[in-house]
Amino acid sequence: MKSYKIRAEKIDGRIQDLARYSDEPNCISRIFGTKAFMQCRDTIELWMKEAGLQTYIDNVGNVRGKLLSENPEAKTLVIGSHYDTVLDAGKYDGVLGVLAGLDIIEKLITDQKKLPFHIELIAFSDEQGVRFHTSYLGSRVVTGKFNSDLLEKKDEDGIKLEEVLQGMNYDSSKFSQDAIPAEKWLGYYEIHIEQGPVLYKNNVPAGIVTGVNGQKRISIEFSGVSGHAGTVPMNMRKDALAAAAEFILAVEKLANSKKSNIVATVGKLEVKHAASNVIPGKVSCTLDLRSSNRKKLLRAYEDLNELCEEICNNRKVYFEWKLVQETNPVDCDEKLMKLLKRAIKEKNKDIEVIEMESGAGHDIIAVSEIAPVVMLFVKCFKGISHNPLESVEIKDIAAALEISDNFIQQLIQSPRLFDPQLQSEEKR
Amino acid sequence: MKSYKIRAEKIDGRIQDLARYSDEPNCISRIFGTKAFMQCRDTIELWMKEAGLQTYIDNVGNVRGKLLSENPEAKTLVIGSHYDTVLDAGKYDGVLGVLAGLDIIEKLITDQKKLPFHIELIAFSDEQGVRFHTSYLGSRVVTGKFNSDLLEKKDEDGIKLEEVLQGMNYDSSKFSQDAIPAEKWLGYYEIHIEQGPVLYKNNVPAGIVTGVNGQKRISIEFSGVSGHAGTVPMNMRKDALAAAAEFILAVEKLANSKKSNIVATVGKLEVKHAASNVIPGKVSCTLDLRSSNRKKLLRAYEDLNELCEEICNNRKVYFEWKLVQETNPVDCDEKLMKLLKRAIKEKNKDIEVIEMESGAGHDIIAVSEIAPVVMLFVKCFKGISHNPLESVEIKDIAAALEISDNFIQQLIQSPRLFDPQLQSEEKR
Repeated sequence: MKSYKIRAEKIDGRIQDLARYSDEPNCISRIFGTKAFMQCRDTIELWMKEAGLQTYIDNVGNVRGKLLSENPEAKTLVIGSHYDTVLDAGKYDGVLGVLAGLDIIEKLITDQKKLPFHIELIAFSDEQGVRFHTSYLGSRVVTGKFNSDLLEKKDEDGIKLEEVLQGMNYDSSKFSQDAIPAEKWLGYYEIHIEQGPVLYKNNVPAGIVTGVNGQKRISIEFSGVSGHAGTVPMNMRKDALAAAAEFILAVEKLANSKKSNIVATVGKLEVKHAASNVIPGKVSCTLDLRSSNRKKLLRAYEDLNELCEEICNNRKVYFEWKLVQETNPVDCDEKLMKLLKRAIKEKNKDIEVIEMESGAGHDIIAVSEIAPVVMLFVKCFKGISHNPLESVEIKDIAAALEISDNFIQQLIQSPRLFDPQLQSEEKR
Repeated sequence: MKSYKIRAEKIDGRIQDLARYSDEPNCISRIFGTKAFMQCRDTIELWMKEAGLQTYIDNVGNVRGKLLSENPEAKTLVIGSHYDTVLDAGKYDGVLGVLAGLDIIEKLITDQKKLPFHIELIAFSDEQGVRFHTSYLGSRVVTGKFNSDLLEKKDEDGIKLEEVLQGMNYDSSKFSQDAIPAEKWLGYYEIHIEQGPVLYKNNVPAGIVTGVNGQKRISIEFSGVSGHAGTVPMNMRKDALAAAAEFILAVEKLANSKKSNIVATVGKLEVKHAASNVIPGKVSCTLDLRSSNRKKLLRAYEDLNELCEEICNNRKVYFEWKLVQETNPVDCDEKLMKLLKRAIKEKNKDIEVIEMESGAGHDIIAVSEIAPVVMLFVKCFKGISHNPLESVEIKDIAAALEISDNFIQQLIQSPRLFDPQLQSEEKR
């Protein structure tokens, strides 16, 4: 157990080191293509090299390090996370997974393990999408699903993504060479801080991600009749804010019912031409709906639309409902989750295995399009993330390492998972 | 009936005439002390003179016209309303009462009625308080309750009220000469558009005002915990907007219960640092409470404060409750209301007599401090006011004239009301 603590401390030290690479002083902001970004990239590559990996930086800035199996036909287990950050970020989001992944692979090298599959560690260059308002640039190149229209996208200063790539001597025409073909993937494993409070509240170091929630974002405008707060009797009002309030509680109630299986948030609300002595005539708000279950997401969407109509009809208030964005849920691979669960149990038989959906997006959204994925969440302080207060304890990093070591062992001992012949025999 | 229509048309014509006196073209804005204000003032004085009243303009710009009783010791019935406007106002707010009052008095002169009391028509110079953010400047001079601190108040251009008065050759040191002493008042009668929808919805031309609502204005800040809309489970949230929504519905429910006798409005609501994917951590809103009943106003205030606490306790959300403004309710005089009711019944026995509180402020707030007051609301189109769409129908002005004629008759026939000796005998 002590060795895990030492390994975790080394990782934590490196996380502190990388935190110094920031576009702005006194905070962490490391955006795609900046000087700090490139410094971080090069440091990660150096560490990969030192660990004994065959490294290269691909044409979108992903840092890639390979540990090969003796079998050249073997499939590849990709372990990864990202090294870019949001603005004024925390230290752990992304790089924890990169450095923990590196440590696990380094252990395999040290232990001279024979691998029935290749392992490739990838530090993705752009997951957050801050600069070009696009997510998963790095992982989409690795999956071969990069949409080349994005190359024309401009940042705030009018610089195109293509120009930024050229500035780093990258060649987008070679993206296809950087892709791992679908048939070559064994699977994808990512370690990441939870960015939510579930593990913290339950005091459990790590949990299994069952998938990433699908999301629907709706904008709603309630139109009642504005009026003098003193002269219009209660029973003659068409108060748009009261209608919105009733809707907010209906949203909360539906999301609170366990069978709904959603989280729902009204995050923005604006009263037009608001004054303390004027009955609100127009109110706009947003609704954010998420669920790991595509059907239940759609069901909640439809139910809330109906509830909104009912509320507005009763109040003689009009409403406009507009779906502004949607993404489908991503499911983690059942077999990989089973192995990860076993890996947790192996660490401590009495530990509670928490299985949870991720409400936030991750590279597994992109990777799951062509390969089985699985993800381990690590407890973070109070669930705080995207914030300088982001914090992870050494002992929880240590627990994640032990679980991950076990997980790789499980994979090594499960030849069926990466042998097509055995798989097809199994099916028969 | 036809003669009332003709009188109403004359009044309406004059209202159209006065609407041309505006500080800005293509709208009606007539602010204390401007050129348009003085033109309007002089036109009203001219019309009063033509009708046979003894006129003068007092030191705050009130236009005053007297019709004297033969009894020099008689009390004075003041009939009035205001001739200033809000910005981008309607045509009827204020001047309807001035011109209808003038018409009623003109009728008394034409009919050579013997009056047991003096009548003084007052067109108040500043009720809205737009220029100096003070209300009832005109009526406070007439009641002798003018607070001389106000003379130092400055308008947007830094011009003091005192300077504006001097510019019109008014002398604030003579305000006391313009006041009518308390013992000289018989009462105060005002005709005014309702500025609300009650009469319009009930299709009743005019209604009795029982008083002006007292008001409490509260600002509330809800503090929960902001968080990621995707990563924080429903049962771990402290959503400040959901707390505010529950409070808004509690406010509405309490105000809707008949025995509460209040109107309540959450007019402003702001989510701090709002984003569609962030659980609201901080929400501020306003609460406007009004009631004609001082006790019930206080009761509602306390009940809602308690409800807010209960809601926030249940949700583990903090709140700050701040009373930012309050005015006490004003009651109209019982005896005068009784006569006005009789006057309405006399016009049409089958008419529904609507008694209503005024949610908006009026000069009766100032006058009621020293004299019995009563007020007649006239139906306005859809209850719209403080708006160019403000509109009143000729037939409703005619009805208000007939009711007012009857009311004056009732007063003439009710010697008790203004004879102290008869009053004291009655008490015995």
